[in-house]
Amino acid sequence: MIKNIDHIGIAVRSLEEALPLYTETLKLELEGIETVESQGVKVAFILAGNTRLELLEALSPESPIAKFIEKRGEGVHHVALGVDNIEDRIQQIKEAGLRMIDETSRLGAHHAKVAFIHPKSTASILYELTERPE
Amino acid sequence: MIKNIDHIGIAVRSLEEALPLYTETLKLELEGIETVESQGVKVAFILAGNTRLELLEALSPESPIAKFIEKRGEGVHHVALGVDNIEDRIQQIKEAGLRMIDETSRLGAHHAKVAFIHPKSTASILYELTERPE
Repeated sequence: MIKNIDHIGIAVRSLEEALPLYTETLKLELEGIETVESQGVKVAFILAGNTRLELLEALSPESPIAKFIEKRGEGVHHVALGVDNIEDRIQQIKEAGLRMIDETSRLGAHHAKVAFIHPKSTASILYELTERPE
Repeated sequence: MIKNIDHIGIAVRSLEEALPLYTETLKLELEGIETVESQGVKVAFILAGNTRLELLEALSPESPIAKFIEKRGEGVHHVALGVDNIEDRIQQIKEAGLRMIDETSRLGAHHAKVAFIHPKSTASILYELTERPE
């Protein structure tokens, strides 16, 4: 069902201000920066050994990340669960009685297919299903 | 400096209520349940492929986890960074100008040595340094 933790998504006000903690102090490697227009975010991927940290900066005040920060402040925004056959996993999760935000997957960063589970079904944690391309 | 993401700590009101999502719906394996009196928590470790999820239930209303839930609700409480030589890492992090909650390590679950970085130094994220015993 779940292969691994694909990444941890972290909402930050500014990538430029957030990055030195990771790349300089903690000496982690910046894998790359990508803009994902469909989700209104600029994303920095940080390699952290067995998984990645995904720092998310809002592109506009309407971005879900801007709204998250306005409401809760900076912090962990979501946890991404790595899966194969994401559409099958979405069906299984719905059949188990959970609510999906995305009933079918959409394209996220790195051309991955992604779908969010509704946090009402997961004790307030925003879990993303992520299927990476081969 | 940082080897990996050792685990993701998740504050829950009740392990009993939280566990079925992980073990039944997401079909992840429960590694074990442990009581850590010094931190006022009962902890369930869930294996998630490349890392672990650590579900934390407060043992009393004075537990930091109880206070966290009261203030912010259930959700991600901390992210644990796996390290070797934790006392050296604490020194390095202090020399980089960050503030530690724990200036020396203390014993956490699984007999690991742990120390928390102050979230004021990390854009609100509570990072734990974790050194597992050999």
